[in-house]
Amino acid sequence: MKLIVQPSDVAMSEPVVMLNRDDCLQLGVGPTDRILITSVRSIVTSIVTTDNEVGKGSIGMPAYVLERCGATDGGLVDVVYSPMPESVKSIRKKINGNTLNGEEIGSIVEDIMEGNLAEKEILAFVSAFNVNNATISEIAQLTRSMASTGIMVDFGTMPVMDFHSLGGVPGNKITPIVVSIVASEGLLIPKMSSRAISSACGTSDFVDTFCDVELDREQLMSAIKRANGVFACGNEDYAPVGRKIIRAERPMGIDPRPTMLASIMSKKVAIGTTHLLIDIPMGEGSKIPDIATARDYAKDLTELGTLLGIHVECGVSRADEPIGHMIGPILEAKECIEVLERGDGDPEVVDKACSMAGILLEMAGEQDGKERALKILGSGAAHRKFLEIVEAQNGDPGLRSEHLVPGSFVKDVHAKRTGFVQYIDNAGMVAIAKGAGAPSDLGAGLEMLHKKGDRVEEGDVLFRIYAENQAKLDRAVESARSRRPMYVQDTPVQDSGPMMLERIPSKKLLDLIRFARSTK
Amino acid sequence: MKLIVQPSDVAMSEPVVMLNRDDCLQLGVGPTDRILITSVRSIVTSIVTTDNEVGKGSIGMPAYVLERCGATDGGLVDVVYSPMPESVKSIRKKINGNTLNGEEIGSIVEDIMEGNLAEKEILAFVSAFNVNNATISEIAQLTRSMASTGIMVDFGTMPVMDFHSLGGVPGNKITPIVVSIVASEGLLIPKMSSRAISSACGTSDFVDTFCDVELDREQLMSAIKRANGVFACGNEDYAPVGRKIIRAERPMGIDPRPTMLASIMSKKVAIGTTHLLIDIPMGEGSKIPDIATARDYAKDLTELGTLLGIHVECGVSRADEPIGHMIGPILEAKECIEVLERGDGDPEVVDKACSMAGILLEMAGEQDGKERALKILGSGAAHRKFLEIVEAQNGDPGLRSEHLVPGSFVKDVHAKRTGFVQYIDNAGMVAIAKGAGAPSDLGAGLEMLHKKGDRVEEGDVLFRIYAENQAKLDRAVESARSRRPMYVQDTPVQDSGPMMLERIPSKKLLDLIRFARSTK
Repeated sequence: MKLIVQPSDVAMSEPVVMLNRDDCLQLGVGPTDRILITSVRSIVTSIVTTDNEVGKGSIGMPAYVLERCGATDGGLVDVVYSPMPESVKSIRKKINGNTLNGEEIGSIVEDIMEGNLAEKEILAFVSAFNVNNATISEIAQLTRSMASTGIMVDFGTMPVMDFHSLGGVPGNKITPIVVSIVASEGLLIPKMSSRAISSACGTSDFVDTFCDVELDREQLMSAIKRANGVFACGNEDYAPVGRKIIRAERPMGIDPRPTMLASIMSKKVAIGTTHLLIDIPMGEGSKIPDIATARDYAKDLTELGTLLGIHVECGVSRADEPIGHMIGPILEAKECIEVLERGDGDPEVVDKACSMAGILLEMAGEQDGKERALKILGSGAAHRKFLEIVEAQNGDPGLRSEHLVPGSFVKDVHAKRTGFVQYIDNAGMVAIAKGAGAPSDLGAGLEMLHKKGDRVEEGDVLFRIYAENQAKLDRAVESARSRRPMYVQDTPVQDSGPMMLERIPSKKLLDLIRFARSTK
Repeated sequence: MKLIVQPSDVAMSEPVVMLNRDDCLQLGVGPTDRILITSVRSIVTSIVTTDNEVGKGSIGMPAYVLERCGATDGGLVDVVYSPMPESVKSIRKKINGNTLNGEEIGSIVEDIMEGNLAEKEILAFVSAFNVNNATISEIAQLTRSMASTGIMVDFGTMPVMDFHSLGGVPGNKITPIVVSIVASEGLLIPKMSSRAISSACGTSDFVDTFCDVELDREQLMSAIKRANGVFACGNEDYAPVGRKIIRAERPMGIDPRPTMLASIMSKKVAIGTTHLLIDIPMGEGSKIPDIATARDYAKDLTELGTLLGIHVECGVSRADEPIGHMIGPILEAKECIEVLERGDGDPEVVDKACSMAGILLEMAGEQDGKERALKILGSGAAHRKFLEIVEAQNGDPGLRSEHLVPGSFVKDVHAKRTGFVQYIDNAGMVAIAKGAGAPSDLGAGLEMLHKKGDRVEEGDVLFRIYAENQAKLDRAVESARSRRPMYVQDTPVQDSGPMMLERIPSKKLLDLIRFARSTK
């Protein structure tokens, strides 16, 4: 049926066009159906029906749909009924508890990518594809299919090192340090980070304060060629279907583990990772509250790695308080670069960065990884590599930490009593830093002058809030007053110990290595 | 916010109102949110937003929403943001693979019933609540919660017998016979059937040709008091939330087992059933293709019964061809009543009805149930009881099978060769009967003059199509030509054997009985 395009501003949570009920009858479609609209290009959309808002022979089209199909105001488009995509059958199969093969999963991913599946169908899929109803090999299939929706990088060499944090701990500024150490050993490490979603500062947010993070494929390849490593932003070039899945999940506030794992790993497959270390931050109140949950994630991730041909190891790290002393883009950049410049610094940052880098070095065949990492950091080699990468990402090779200046609106929060810092509430600290304007105000954030276990006197500064204007500073101070994120009491606190709590190698790969050695 | 009501004819698959984008900004809502509209009553709806279709200060309301909240054209309604219902948290928990308690499941059911959950949220719930992610005790909780959304009947006595067919086999006209046999033994059997959904004739469709099937609570109680049994229609009074769940499932064509089982059992809980026999029709191409699947369903159903305090047994029955010779409302009524009048008749109908009735009698403590059932049928006692029930359902107590006359447009389909009927395709027969107008044209349907295994000569009538007008007869004949549902070949066919293939009692209850006996 040919219909005349009439721009419309009616918006739902997904693409929808408005049709006259008479035309719907003739097309044999109703409000639960989809239509295929063809102009310069084709697009499948949902329908709302009306008797009057749109006349017979016309179609009400929001700007997004107009643009997607290349239609023009008053122009003609061809409209036909769009049958339920074949992939809905596969989703049904999954809802009925059956296992899907690669082709079936591939068709679901393709239809999500093409916009052929409605949000509720995507939602039904991820709901059915839950921990009790998805096998590791199905998750691996989903991962591969998701990876294939975007750029697939091949560096033509091995190993390609990578690491990833399951997230959730504020102040985790180790990425540029780890990348610099690993890259200075001549290993490739094309690390793609992300910006904050609900946190006060993602890796890309603080790296963005001193060099470019959005690299296209060519820039990435040339930076890797020049410096072996990058700390760029994993943008929509890689496994872009992930974002469409998240868009369907977000209104219900869900992030089920199987799709979450596939989403993480698909970006690694896309970038060509061969050796991957996953940081599993563990702490009360976080996504991973205890070691049993951490091991459960590690088991899934290492098994998934085996199926994907990626050597995965996991490191469970302390996440019971923020890492280091700084939170916020410029403040974290500053603390990170200071460590690189001095070859030492905040003990937590140094310990976590060198532990992670150390495991990566060992995964690539080196011995005594952590000592080696500490040596590379201490010798200044890591700092030289860091500046090389900064330059490759269009930053200033003369960059110094003192160039980075946080917001000038500052307020100290004092201890109300003498005692020991019992704990620091991650969520509370994030709320204060966000109240101060982080991550969009680059200079906003906070500096903790004390950490868990420190003895403080009444009146000592516990932490300092930085903002770029008075209003946001006031808001942050108010938030600090109500949340009280640093708790002081008489009881001395046990030493927190090392940042790395447990290293979980891939059992399967260890078995293979043992087998290979025994048959030599 | 107060908004002026403006009737709108914009329709989606669920209630939706149209708001001006400025008002949305002020309310803090967008296209993925819900609002609570209050006029005489309150209703929660989804939103579509617009800049122009609805002016600032107005709200576009379709008739359904207007009516539900009691608003009037040009009147004022109060509109506020409606937060995500608490039950969404429980749905999330289920999507994350956790077990839900009764309260959590109850709140989901309540919110579905109240219209507080969007269709996609219901869909996410049923998708997550799949065979691999729902325990029997969760299904029992869901069943109880669903039952409590409507009338709960208490007959104040035990046992209350009931039976139910998982469906799928055409010509299954045994219900009035089973009910009449069981009720003539003085047992209560308030049997609620349904109308056809995709079949050519549901039990209520053919019973409706000779007496009322829609009974309200009072009519039901008085009919049961007078006659011990009914063969009524299980209408929206019982577990009405089931229909809302089905409405969300239908666009995706899903009917996942856990919600399906809960839906069936909730109606039994609502009617106060204590002893339930489930007919599991088994046959190639049907929902239950083999004995393993049948036993799997039986296991779930008997376990579910135990948790619900209902003694459930299952009978697996032959469903490899239609039951008896007739398909279609008047034709099935005729064949059913003939059996009752003669105390005998079509061997399949008699065998299946008396096998089922026999199990029910044994469940109620009688011995040699099937022989007893055959005796009750043969003696005319079942027929007398049948007419008593018909009268209690406002039918004619002088009803005779010859009063029922099928459509006068008739066409015979002949055998093209001599041989044996190899099989009869259920789906093909249903398609032909529906083509002829069944179930809405009461006289439409077909009569099979031969069944599987019969020897036929070339030119013999295989089956006869009945319709109420020529056009539909032609359509059915065309369908018969293309589908060829009765296949004749040289090879003799093995005798099909008895209708009841396997009886599956509740293991748990058998154990309890054994235990009770051993401790006497």
